[in-house]
Amino acid sequence: PVIRHCVLLRIAEGTDPEVVERIVEALRTLPARIPSIRTYEVGVDLGWRDGNAEIGIVAGFDDQEGWRAYVDHPDHVAVIEQHIAPVVTSRQAVQFQV
Amino acid sequence: PVIRHCVLLRIAEGTDPEVVERIVEALRTLPARIPSIRTYEVGVDLGWRDGNAEIGIVAGFDDQEGWRAYVDHPDHVAVIEQHIAPVVTSRQAVQFQV
Repeated sequence: PVIRHCVLLRIAEGTDPEVVERIVEALRTLPARIPSIRTYEVGVDLGWRDGNAEIGIVAGFDDQEGWRAYVDHPDHVAVIEQHIAPVVTSRQAVQFQV
Repeated sequence: PVIRHCVLLRIAEGTDPEVVERIVEALRTLPARIPSIRTYEVGVDLGWRDGNAEIGIVAGFDDQEGWRAYVDHPDHVAVIEQHIAPVVTSRQAVQFQV
């Protein structure tokens, strides 16, 4: 894959850690459902530095079409609407060529 | 590497694109100088989505010590002070286990 996609999510203070874990688990189901995903890593911040985001997502795609297929995929949209949107306070993203 | 480190940088509007490119080039010199870096990718956002950060950094380390050696390394600190701090408006980061 030549396209690196990275997203950092900040989660509302006081959110149950189980809710955060469910976001990570829901995102981890996506590679099996979205064929354009070439690599996919999701995890909860390790707490080594104050001010970090709570969740990181690092993905790889072959090209813009592959990335867009992921962005628009109904399963991905569902994860955002059902799990992420209710508790996320900020979202930062980037796509760059590797 | 089992530790994924991801940083997104937002750069002040109106910053010369050459300045942004110099940040990327300066960061890319670090793997040759910091042995604890296992993988390292830096790039400028491709402009596929409004609101994205301008620069993404995705790195891999074996453990917390390796990550800390990078964070504290004088060459890394120099890049931040000389190239990044003058023009960055926000910085978001995360470290998670892969």
